[in-house]
Amino acid sequence: MSRYPSELLTLMGFLKQLPGVGARTAERFAFQLLTWQPGQLHLFAELLGSLHDKIKHCQACGCLIDGSDCHFCDKDKRDGTILCIISSAKDALSLENTRAYKGLYHVIGGLLSPLDGRSLEQLGLEQLQERLASLEVKEIIIALDSTLEGDATSLYLKEQLEKWGFSASRLAFGLPLGSSLDFVDGGTLSKALTGRQRF
Amino acid sequence: MSRYPSELLTLMGFLKQLPGVGARTAERFAFQLLTWQPGQLHLFAELLGSLHDKIKHCQACGCLIDGSDCHFCDKDKRDGTILCIISSAKDALSLENTRAYKGLYHVIGGLLSPLDGRSLEQLGLEQLQERLASLEVKEIIIALDSTLEGDATSLYLKEQLEKWGFSASRLAFGLPLGSSLDFVDGGTLSKALTGRQRF
Repeated sequence: MSRYPSELLTLMGFLKQLPGVGARTAERFAFQLLTWQPGQLHLFAELLGSLHDKIKHCQACGCLIDGSDCHFCDKDKRDGTILCIISSAKDALSLENTRAYKGLYHVIGGLLSPLDGRSLEQLGLEQLQERLASLEVKEIIIALDSTLEGDATSLYLKEQLEKWGFSASRLAFGLPLGSSLDFVDGGTLSKALTGRQRF
Repeated sequence: MSRYPSELLTLMGFLKQLPGVGARTAERFAFQLLTWQPGQLHLFAELLGSLHDKIKHCQACGCLIDGSDCHFCDKDKRDGTILCIISSAKDALSLENTRAYKGLYHVIGGLLSPLDGRSLEQLGLEQLQERLASLEVKEIIIALDSTLEGDATSLYLKEQLEKWGFSASRLAFGLPLGSSLDFVDGGTLSKALTGRQRF
């Protein structure tokens, strides 16, 4: 029989839904939250409650917007001839931090995963097709995860894009920077070998 | 320059205060929270906002109470001759789960730690002394962490308790169950050796 107050169990239930948080970590988090000052906890609660009202996604590209204009769709500052297809708004920020990309983004909102109930309809391909028709894109980069789901989605997207008359490239696979060959798995090494480039 | 909406940065700031959560994890949590259904997020926010109103500490022992009565102070069900001194309400639940203890608890609310500004006053020793005077305790177990702060606090408590005419014991140090000698650090091994017991 658990001696936890029921509200604490409910709180742990919520916390367990965060990525990588199990029962023990949820317990640690819950007890830590109990030690927060009431004022701080209220501010946190208020922010969470209004999260969906305050943080919006751009209607065109799907990236997060601060205020009313989408920084990532700004025609004056971005290169409108390149479009990068990503699975979540977070990836745009990761790519942005590299400072190696100045083009447009398009968030498809997830990867194909029949087991998780994510099917073709949820990729929003009609929206992508409409958007491509309205832009002057010359190059499309598919920047999805190098997982089974990412591979399947990338392949499917590539075929669709070819049907619509676009050619697409995908992020390179290979050694992560700073890694030693000893610690790189066989699959990555094999990809690095087949994708080798001339100096 | 960060492209994160300011509310998202604030949210990450809050999440970073949870134990063991760094910038990357806070980012993962924040983006996961963005994918929650608004209804679920509202329930979570509501619970957090009312946490201090809903979850109370027992005025006598400091443990968490569900409803109005403290399960841990229940005279009919608990052994009133043993008192266990713990640093947080969470520890009572951990000890309770062992099913090896049926006595009373007393939460001191933290360990002595001059660097974190936790001094003697915050241990609530007067409250402990008053409580001991009103109870018929014959045995006191000090169940604090086996850290530098835990050791210092235990030693101090032991001296105080002796001054008040009580003798106290402390949790045993030694090998954790299921561990191999190979993986146990020298300090633990040395404690296990000095604390050895006859079969």
